[in-house]
Amino acid sequence: MQHNLLIETCFTPALFNLYKNTENVVIVVDILRATTSICTAFQNGIKELIPVSGIDDAMRYKDLGYLVAAERDGRILDFADIGNSPEDFSEEIVFNKTIAYSTTNGTQAINMASDCHAVVIGAFINITALSNWLLIQNRNITILCAGWKNKFNLEDSLFAGALSEKLLKHEKFFTDCDSTLAAIELWKSAKDNTVENIKKASHYKRLCKLGKQSTIEYCMSQDLTQKIPVLKNGKIISQ
Amino acid sequence: MQHNLLIETCFTPALFNLYKNTENVVIVVDILRATTSICTAFQNGIKELIPVSGIDDAMRYKDLGYLVAAERDGRILDFADIGNSPEDFSEEIVFNKTIAYSTTNGTQAINMASDCHAVVIGAFINITALSNWLLIQNRNITILCAGWKNKFNLEDSLFAGALSEKLLKHEKFFTDCDSTLAAIELWKSAKDNTVENIKKASHYKRLCKLGKQSTIEYCMSQDLTQKIPVLKNGKIISQ
Repeated sequence: MQHNLLIETCFTPALFNLYKNTENVVIVVDILRATTSICTAFQNGIKELIPVSGIDDAMRYKDLGYLVAAERDGRILDFADIGNSPEDFSEEIVFNKTIAYSTTNGTQAINMASDCHAVVIGAFINITALSNWLLIQNRNITILCAGWKNKFNLEDSLFAGALSEKLLKHEKFFTDCDSTLAAIELWKSAKDNTVENIKKASHYKRLCKLGKQSTIEYCMSQDLTQKIPVLKNGKIISQ
Repeated sequence: MQHNLLIETCFTPALFNLYKNTENVVIVVDILRATTSICTAFQNGIKELIPVSGIDDAMRYKDLGYLVAAERDGRILDFADIGNSPEDFSEEIVFNKTIAYSTTNGTQAINMASDCHAVVIGAFINITALSNWLLIQNRNITILCAGWKNKFNLEDSLFAGALSEKLLKHEKFFTDCDSTLAAIELWKSAKDNTVENIKKASHYKRLCKLGKQSTIEYCMSQDLTQKIPVLKNGKIISQ
């Protein structure tokens, strides 16, 4: 069994209907910051996360007594308990808790893929553990970049390239997908200095305006956790 | 007046609603092969081209007595006079003619942008003339990649990078668009060997299956024409 598992990359949720295959494992990526924060939450012992697409739904969870993490355009929503930064998901706050979570891009992308064979959360901070887990799934994979309001973004695409490069070292994987090939090229030209590289990105400028640029270094760091968050029955749990 | 003209890149027509600004000049790009063929047709003295989105419309033009160029999935349609290769648009065939033209991706992209300030046809074969022409328009620009069936493709994105790199040498242009930044990175890593680079692309493999790979070298060649085809009142004419 060689070269028989396909890697495809979908650069934005707006294109997911063109790439979606319910037989596939879908890796959802929102490096700045939703999927990095989710991996952090599981590293810090959260019990489960409920990804919520709409603000109204997030408010309903709040009314039901849940702890709510909610953000739009980079800012915490006024009714929410915490925002969307990895540092918001500290062990003190999240250990053994269930949290409802709604963000500008990431949580919608997670819910779009919910009827696929598996939905798994990818970030630089769990990239090697994720890659090893994907190797034993023996499924075609789709890397779904959350992007920014349905536009392409650099940081999620770089991650798609980094993950694809890792997987393609194993002969069971191949790609004929132009998005994946482009992502790998982007990663090759960025990987020796990812933090500097990401300073070109529009999202870096948005985070600077919010005083959140210090989170970039953490979000671009590799292998800070072995956790593999997956979606099961509408909730994200640790694999 | 410095750095005040924005360059944005839309990687596929499926995302154009996110990038569309009717005040902008839109450069439509379908390197393999529609926009390369259109530039070739004007180099060879065509009078005008009518971009036609649907096959039914193309057949109607045929019934009305027009010469018709029409292709789907790389193959000439049976009712058409010529296909979609640059060599189909020879001087013998096109000189002083009006031709109705319908392709898988490119002609739809042209028609999507028809209500923008200007729609201009871009290809490697007219890239320097096009860049010089854009410099004197003093408008924000959107590079609209035709892609492949609404997916991202490598060859159109490389062109977006090449054109952006040329324009950004002039201080009136700037970009904060992640797609444009990514396209420039892709172009930088490909430009020393564009033909070899494009052999990775899915479209190259499709053209090989059709025995059309010899067209690649022509389509990746720069500055074979000074023509600037533009859309005016539903027809493409030479600027």
